[in-house]
Amino acid sequence: MLRMSTLFLRTLREDPVDAEVPSHRLLQRAGYIRRVAPGIFTWLPLGWRTYRNVENVIRTEMDAAGFQEMHFPALLPREPYERTNRWSEYGDTLFRLQDRRKGDYLLGPTHEELFTLAVKSEFSSYKDLPISLYQIQTKYRDEARPRAGILRGREFVMKDSYSFDIDDEGLANSYRQHRDAYIRTFDRLGLDYVIVSAMSGAMGGSRSEEFLARSEVGEDTFVECPACGYAANTEAVTTLAPAEYNRALGEPHIEETPETSTIEALVSYAQDALPRPDRAWQASDTLKNVVLLVTDPDGASRPLVIGVPGDRAIDEKRLEAALAPATVSAFTDEDFEQYPVLVPGYIGPQVLGKDSESGIEYLVDPRVVAGSAWVTGANEPGRHVFDLVMGRDFRADAVIEAAEVRQGDPCPVCGQPLAIERGIEIGHIFQLGRKYAEALGLQVLDENGELVTVTMGSYGIGVSRAVAAIAEQSHDETGLCWPVAVAPADVHVVVMGKNPDVLAAAEELCEQAEAEGVRVLVDDRTGVSAGVKFNDAELLGIPTILVVGRGLKDGVVELRDRASGDAEDVPVSEILARLLDRSAVVRTD
Amino acid sequence: MLRMSTLFLRTLREDPVDAEVPSHRLLQRAGYIRRVAPGIFTWLPLGWRTYRNVENVIRTEMDAAGFQEMHFPALLPREPYERTNRWSEYGDTLFRLQDRRKGDYLLGPTHEELFTLAVKSEFSSYKDLPISLYQIQTKYRDEARPRAGILRGREFVMKDSYSFDIDDEGLANSYRQHRDAYIRTFDRLGLDYVIVSAMSGAMGGSRSEEFLARSEVGEDTFVECPACGYAANTEAVTTLAPAEYNRALGEPHIEETPETSTIEALVSYAQDALPRPDRAWQASDTLKNVVLLVTDPDGASRPLVIGVPGDRAIDEKRLEAALAPATVSAFTDEDFEQYPVLVPGYIGPQVLGKDSESGIEYLVDPRVVAGSAWVTGANEPGRHVFDLVMGRDFRADAVIEAAEVRQGDPCPVCGQPLAIERGIEIGHIFQLGRKYAEALGLQVLDENGELVTVTMGSYGIGVSRAVAAIAEQSHDETGLCWPVAVAPADVHVVVMGKNPDVLAAAEELCEQAEAEGVRVLVDDRTGVSAGVKFNDAELLGIPTILVVGRGLKDGVVELRDRASGDAEDVPVSEILARLLDRSAVVRTD
Repeated sequence: MLRMSTLFLRTLREDPVDAEVPSHRLLQRAGYIRRVAPGIFTWLPLGWRTYRNVENVIRTEMDAAGFQEMHFPALLPREPYERTNRWSEYGDTLFRLQDRRKGDYLLGPTHEELFTLAVKSEFSSYKDLPISLYQIQTKYRDEARPRAGILRGREFVMKDSYSFDIDDEGLANSYRQHRDAYIRTFDRLGLDYVIVSAMSGAMGGSRSEEFLARSEVGEDTFVECPACGYAANTEAVTTLAPAEYNRALGEPHIEETPETSTIEALVSYAQDALPRPDRAWQASDTLKNVVLLVTDPDGASRPLVIGVPGDRAIDEKRLEAALAPATVSAFTDEDFEQYPVLVPGYIGPQVLGKDSESGIEYLVDPRVVAGSAWVTGANEPGRHVFDLVMGRDFRADAVIEAAEVRQGDPCPVCGQPLAIERGIEIGHIFQLGRKYAEALGLQVLDENGELVTVTMGSYGIGVSRAVAAIAEQSHDETGLCWPVAVAPADVHVVVMGKNPDVLAAAEELCEQAEAEGVRVLVDDRTGVSAGVKFNDAELLGIPTILVVGRGLKDGVVELRDRASGDAEDVPVSEILARLLDRSAVVRTD
Repeated sequence: MLRMSTLFLRTLREDPVDAEVPSHRLLQRAGYIRRVAPGIFTWLPLGWRTYRNVENVIRTEMDAAGFQEMHFPALLPREPYERTNRWSEYGDTLFRLQDRRKGDYLLGPTHEELFTLAVKSEFSSYKDLPISLYQIQTKYRDEARPRAGILRGREFVMKDSYSFDIDDEGLANSYRQHRDAYIRTFDRLGLDYVIVSAMSGAMGGSRSEEFLARSEVGEDTFVECPACGYAANTEAVTTLAPAEYNRALGEPHIEETPETSTIEALVSYAQDALPRPDRAWQASDTLKNVVLLVTDPDGASRPLVIGVPGDRAIDEKRLEAALAPATVSAFTDEDFEQYPVLVPGYIGPQVLGKDSESGIEYLVDPRVVAGSAWVTGANEPGRHVFDLVMGRDFRADAVIEAAEVRQGDPCPVCGQPLAIERGIEIGHIFQLGRKYAEALGLQVLDENGELVTVTMGSYGIGVSRAVAAIAEQSHDETGLCWPVAVAPADVHVVVMGKNPDVLAAAEELCEQAEAEGVRVLVDDRTGVSAGVKFNDAELLGIPTILVVGRGLKDGVVELRDRASGDAEDVPVSEILARLLDRSAVVRTD
């Protein structure tokens, strides 16, 4: 039994100054967590109980799915990460250190390398596969902007699983098993989430989906089609090539367009000086060519030009995801000096492409389809070219998904308008393929005695983040409202007044409930006002609040549902049954 | 149910080359752990289950004692450790690193600072005390010589508790509660251990005891008195001042003793050239003065001379413990050049002491009592002084416990001969006192409204080390023999042969046992010989081995006790009851 009189807990009346989101604010105010350093937190007793409940739900579901738990160290030698190139690819995000012998170590951000090597050292035959292994473990990532409390920490707990199969069919099966186990897990945690298509990004691999808890404060943006159910992380949205596009009236023609280095100025000038017969010029009639500096993981830099319709911005996260593991930075004045062919404000695709004289890579948005005509730069200051046709007058090296996605864009599956939503990434499942197995030499003998490279999947749940995600979805203006499966207690008993009979009766009730398996938190503090006790009960967010006070002489206590606020007087004789009904104890199957 | 056919496990026939002790050898051979880097290990599924059983026993006992669990980060900012001086005092043992903003961090070796600050931030009154808080958490120490597998790792798990009291009496009470909880914990873990007096060492504080699991491979040496029960870590042994000692025959007299820079040469020369009338000269008649270089935590160095009876060596660990946090190194030839008063091989106490002309600190063994006469160096090459009397002819600045302790030395309590034993430190309890509270400003208001500094205790259990300690105490030449409380399963079912009826019957039996709560590991592998299966069963060390095979047609299975080897045929109808009897499931109260 937890007692407010002895619990290591002090609730805060004021919002902490550094708290940006409700979960961070409430978890601090309710005494669940405390900040130690940026992105590094301590769990106080109530928080730790909540965390452990979440962890237990996850572990139970992983075990039920037949995945085997093991445990790797967090302090890891450099060598395996060197072999997969992630020692450098991770950049500043990796915490690196040296031991007393000057050996290089890192704090594990994720454990693909170690799991791969573990299977390599134990297994050698196709008969050993498939196998799925997992751990629940502290991870470290030196985030540039740790934010929102435990939503994005630098030390956090992940459940990471890895599957090992002999072929792609096996991987598809393991992936499905994990997907199903994740659905059961997040359902049990009471989360409102959506499964979206995702980029596999720097992890390599093919199919990948994210589990996003719906939340306005989420860092992930995703699209959702109300018509057909399509859902994808913005980074992974595929753009529908338009059926309708501008056709050319004839050959391309260069026009004087002085001082039109912006799309806005160009459209305005064209409208005045070179009006279209049919309608007004629009930004989407122009082809904007954005120059960037791309740096590969080996440190080599090169210019890249991306052509997008003039009404669209480049979405930085989509761009990064599309180019990873390469990184992108702005093209500076000095860079332009090195490439005089690129005329700022007047760049056109006529001089671009790997096969062109400049050799500068040129990628285009999927809306730039073959046959479409554009107004774009003439590669001379103050001049643009009109009726430049993709496929006829210029070419691109490839298509890239880097333009912003907008509310109402057509769904790539059904064409209906997409909605844009925000979410918190609580899970991520990847079909990794053979990238890590190849890098680390994980092979087994197949049925014919031939060595084949093992096919892997990688699956993660943010365990500590899930606590925050649940808090984001389960709170109101007065405090937290935990689902019973994760709440630090089943019932919060508020003892009113100082009448010793009431205290004794409350105590007896609590003991009986605990004996039945109901997890009780009792506010047995004396010298604390009823108002303070109620405020704390609302703030802490235990699902059921039981008020033991004046009604006792009439044989009733008040039972309140924390989330709905519904309250009713319940005869003392019935209270145990009611509490059991509302407790995690009856839901452990 | 665990199945050998799918378990992530490969047992090894050969001992790993780097395994120094039985637990390390067997835990690796049985597939419980794997080495990732020096002192850094992975838990494979069976090892992780065993580890978690140990952790659960510890957690249950801590909770039962009313200690509250919370959880601190492992990655910690430098500042709190700077304030207690441990950022530098820990030396090379501390893993230090910088984040991307060049902020200094460390990997927590122990968490006194963080717990102290946590209580400071939440509590402010004597009414809030006492409180005991704990965590079960991964710790990091960059040991100079990680050895013996998980017995002394660089990444390991500790349960660390801290008590907070208003005064020393409260501390004594909290200390007793922890001591009792530790006794219950180690009893439940089935460990054979002894509680010994310990030095509090670098931790500061007063009373301190260690829980040592008896083991020949233990790094800790302790003395035990068979007569009165006194037990102490060698570092903490107090030496009984002898009632009998050599008396002087007269004034000190210097004798020529050429080429006698060793005690052996001196005794031999004296025996020949200057024989005693009553008996032969002994090494214990001489006073050996050992020069050392002492370095304080602030980096300042100074010479120190320690006088011990000539038959005793200095014990390095006792010396380090006595001088901590200062460190000790050898006095080099260059050092001697700086102090010409110190004549190597012929040093005598006449020129030593803080108040002497040399100012060199001089400490003596407790056997060097006032009135005792010694043969010792005359501070000139080739000369010794005889009949030099402590207190009359020389003085010491203080007494130091640094001489080796030997089997048969008198017990400091009862004077009977001591036995010397070895053990593995599995727990350590400290009365810390006010050192950390003072350094970090942890004060509360007392009954009179006065600020008082809080009094702390610190208590640790090596969780991962306990697994190894249990393995050290519970194995034989063929493998591990886990106590049922920590075993990864209750029963290891060996299915013999390929008869489908036998397989089906074994499967049914396993399912029934699991349904009753018995944790089953079944060796359901086909194409593996009986010999291999039996060897693996012996190696893995599950307490009960059940052989399902030929006897089945007569309605019996064989039940073996892994530890004793006792086997009997049990009717199938009785087997469930027998398994329940031998399982952890019936012992959870």
